[in-house]
Amino acid sequence: MVREEPRSRERRKADTLAKLTAPVADGWVASAGDGEPYLVPLSLAWLDERVVLALAADSRTARNIVARGRARLGLGPTRDVVMIDALLDVVIPAAEAGAIADGYAAQSDWDPRAAGPGYVFLVLAPDRIQAWREADEIPGRLLMRGGTWLV
Amino acid sequence: MVREEPRSRERRKADTLAKLTAPVADGWVASAGDGEPYLVPLSLAWLDERVVLALAADSRTARNIVARGRARLGLGPTRDVVMIDALLDVVIPAAEAGAIADGYAAQSDWDPRAAGPGYVFLVLAPDRIQAWREADEIPGRLLMRGGTWLV
Repeated sequence: MVREEPRSRERRKADTLAKLTAPVADGWVASAGDGEPYLVPLSLAWLDERVVLALAADSRTARNIVARGRARLGLGPTRDVVMIDALLDVVIPAAEAGAIADGYAAQSDWDPRAAGPGYVFLVLAPDRIQAWREADEIPGRLLMRGGTWLV
Repeated sequence: MVREEPRSRERRKADTLAKLTAPVADGWVASAGDGEPYLVPLSLAWLDERVVLALAADSRTARNIVARGRARLGLGPTRDVVMIDALLDVVIPAAEAGAIADGYAAQSDWDPRAAGPGYVFLVLAPDRIQAWREADEIPGRLLMRGGTWLV
């Protein structure tokens, strides 16, 4: 196996954006409620520098994120990850989401507007983004801090 | 693409055990502390029906799990997942872990005993295990409840 050099931070940003904008981009979404961790795999869209999730409003993940205002997302296989700490920006009922719903349906393989009532879009603003593959990429993994790209 | 039938629960249990016992098994480990979700990819071992993690004792994941007594883990690509809600059984300093350390080193690609002082093994007892691929496998996804296999 060819052992790759650690990627530059510019390359990691490009790889991160490629993951976020890929058709049918899935991620692991961690949230917390009453001190208990929760975690599910979900499809996401990357629209206007925001992570957009679509969920049943009464799902545990939606309730946790709305209550606590934050989520932590992981994308990629476990040895090529993007980690995103994100803050809840806005919650929009699916039927009223307009361009966000169009953008989500264009990137994803389902349209939450067709999933029945009770679905919402959660628009999350990334606050911190890290990207690494293995231990040799731990240095330089911080790509965004305080919502601002560092590269 | 051949569209597979939803797997039987017996088949899902076998697939779950295959994931848990695979060489260099990685998972996504969600924990919570102060109401904030945390999430990292980690290697795990499956020893004696327990999930074993190895971490720096002062890492955020170790501190959260020790404080709250629980974690939620996800294994697999996002469309072939195993979800495990687990309760902390015991914490053992790496140097004192004996058979657990041997078992972890045999399954993983690193030996926490060689990682310096301050590493611990967290032994987690699965309480609830679910396995599904896509929406058609949501029914029947519960394989373990209250620490007991249902299949």
